[in-house]
Amino acid sequence: MNIAIAQSGGPTCAINASLVGAYAEALKYPQIDAIFGSINGIEGIINNDLIDLKNFIRSNDDMELLKQTPSTVLGSCRYKLPDEEDDTSIYEKIMNCFIKHDIKAFFYIGGNDSMDTVLKLSAYAELHKYDVRIIGIPKTIDNDLCATDHTPGFGSAAKYVATTVQEIVCDSAVYSIESVTIIEIMGRHAGWLTASTCVIRANGVNAPHLIYLPEGNFSVDRFVEDVKREQAKHKALVIAVSEGIELDDDNYRSGVTDNFGHKYLSGIGKQLENIVRQKFGCKVRSIELNVMQRCSSHICSKTDIDEACAIGAAGVRAALAGETGKTMVFKRISDIPYIIDIVSVPASETANKEKFFPKEWITPDGTNVNEHALRYFLPLIQGENVLRMRNGMPEHFKIKEEVLK
Amino acid sequence: MNIAIAQSGGPTCAINASLVGAYAEALKYPQIDAIFGSINGIEGIINNDLIDLKNFIRSNDDMELLKQTPSTVLGSCRYKLPDEEDDTSIYEKIMNCFIKHDIKAFFYIGGNDSMDTVLKLSAYAELHKYDVRIIGIPKTIDNDLCATDHTPGFGSAAKYVATTVQEIVCDSAVYSIESVTIIEIMGRHAGWLTASTCVIRANGVNAPHLIYLPEGNFSVDRFVEDVKREQAKHKALVIAVSEGIELDDDNYRSGVTDNFGHKYLSGIGKQLENIVRQKFGCKVRSIELNVMQRCSSHICSKTDIDEACAIGAAGVRAALAGETGKTMVFKRISDIPYIIDIVSVPASETANKEKFFPKEWITPDGTNVNEHALRYFLPLIQGENVLRMRNGMPEHFKIKEEVLK
Repeated sequence: MNIAIAQSGGPTCAINASLVGAYAEALKYPQIDAIFGSINGIEGIINNDLIDLKNFIRSNDDMELLKQTPSTVLGSCRYKLPDEEDDTSIYEKIMNCFIKHDIKAFFYIGGNDSMDTVLKLSAYAELHKYDVRIIGIPKTIDNDLCATDHTPGFGSAAKYVATTVQEIVCDSAVYSIESVTIIEIMGRHAGWLTASTCVIRANGVNAPHLIYLPEGNFSVDRFVEDVKREQAKHKALVIAVSEGIELDDDNYRSGVTDNFGHKYLSGIGKQLENIVRQKFGCKVRSIELNVMQRCSSHICSKTDIDEACAIGAAGVRAALAGETGKTMVFKRISDIPYIIDIVSVPASETANKEKFFPKEWITPDGTNVNEHALRYFLPLIQGENVLRMRNGMPEHFKIKEEVLK
Repeated sequence: MNIAIAQSGGPTCAINASLVGAYAEALKYPQIDAIFGSINGIEGIINNDLIDLKNFIRSNDDMELLKQTPSTVLGSCRYKLPDEEDDTSIYEKIMNCFIKHDIKAFFYIGGNDSMDTVLKLSAYAELHKYDVRIIGIPKTIDNDLCATDHTPGFGSAAKYVATTVQEIVCDSAVYSIESVTIIEIMGRHAGWLTASTCVIRANGVNAPHLIYLPEGNFSVDRFVEDVKREQAKHKALVIAVSEGIELDDDNYRSGVTDNFGHKYLSGIGKQLENIVRQKFGCKVRSIELNVMQRCSSHICSKTDIDEACAIGAAGVRAALAGETGKTMVFKRISDIPYIIDIVSVPASETANKEKFFPKEWITPDGTNVNEHALRYFLPLIQGENVLRMRNGMPEHFKIKEEVLK
């Protein structure tokens, strides 16, 4: 029998580690022959675009290199399967690909949208008696997947963000004038990554002074009051804000306009920058951590990478034990010492659902997070991998461009 | 006798290393008693705001920690001394501070503006027979200081930028659709830091596909042609552009407008993003590396940090040898093996001047840089310091907030 692995959704620093984890585990079982990589997520299965991973990942060295390579080495997609009732042809194409290549297990590394694919494919296969097991391996820097303590990729993103925010705090403090620095952080509708900036407190850095999450009730008026109050205490004010926040007052929503009259709404950071400039007239800067949050593998969390490997391997074992339609998840046994367990849950518990930052971890005034959050986040950013460097830069694993097209 | 050290201008990852270098060297000489730190650059001398560094930097451990701490631990300023003819009172204030504290040598770590201070102060002291030596220690991520092969701080910025651009290249390549990623890089009017992105070629990464420097003649029309031509070759196009570039066509200069009608010109990255969206309609993203370029000490260049220490120490030796009105500079002896020498030049050679990226290192079509650039940049980003970590984040040296005000 053969198996296939695919990667989907937005890149992270850990998604290749999950690929390595699944691949290395599969190598241990003599009943598994070929291990296919599907190019660009499920699209590779639909288009019969598979590569034999053994031709590309040939050694432990290759695996180590792949683990320190950000993004998805097999490419990605944002493809949503139609409902079975609407279109069975795609499902049949996929099942035919599985049959043609004797693929008895398919592993989909992705976020909550990808778990929808796991759910639908496994249901279809079971209903129509196709002999293939479908397992979801979670990944997302947003940490918004349900039923799991946290998601692979999140710890590395949080470590990058914490390290960078700590450095920005140093940078912002140099001049003797008042300043406001606004840092816009990813996470879609969930505030996890923004909230994780609280970890720098563990190192005695009293910042960010204000933290705004989509889970709080953001108000422009309150924001102005918050800045006024905190600026009296901190010469160099540092604010962390989630990209998912929307202003409650249309008068303050600002945008980029080009000279053709096209207008694009700015990010929330730029909008808050404009409000501060309006209201306070002080030095103000907004910073978008942008894609660096999801691809800065040079400062990845060893805990995250190790866990991403482990959950990939656990997925292979679950499939071999006969499971299908499952998402592999972390259960946290304890914070200190940090102990997690990997188990499987029905993919329906994770597909198309979002897990939000707990309201009870937000301070009553809605401008910061409490000790529960700190205890939750800290274990996830621990440890550093010793990077293989080349010419003064991290070395990355490459699959030839022709293969990826 | 005592000495004083101050830091000025924009923060870098290496400016504290130069402080450590000067401090550690000064400790070796029994004739030097107190080593003062001036808070917020020359403003600390003017305002009599000095701290005795021996009370703060107490051990080798402290020095190691300070070397891995970004930004200016003593604060900074953007203060330009008036011409002597216009106002001697400031000069007298400064000289009085030197006399009051028995300061016989003053070390100013900064860029070309700070070298203006070195030049003016040393001329004034000589003319009026004040017994104090004034030495400039260079620093700037812009690498635009004259008379030196390169500046401390630049190598670490270049290493961060190269590492990050390499990761962004991975990130941008994941989807099967065409995309353009525009990375805006600092450097003021000089293209050094943007040009340094060419180093990723040494690792076999064929990117950035287009590099635009202020030293080239940027034209919107040519840019559109360039993108069209390169997009035919590269599905995921990556473009590096210097913040200092101005569009030649006013019709394309776009800005951020708030609903109060206030308009701010966007950065060049955002402006080019709008042009690409207009002209090509494809997926396009602009990324500002922002202050992370100058403060990401977690991925600093060991070569840079070591050199920053060494040039600080050399400054102290120069002052003790009787020199004044000098800037310490690097002379490159050879690229391979990389050998540099540290010498002093008259501060007039560096003050208020800018060194631009050599036109002969730009490719004839103006969209990239050649092998000379690669050979120049590569040695500067070599080596990594083993960081002292705490709670999963780099540990930083702190001087109490009350001291820095």
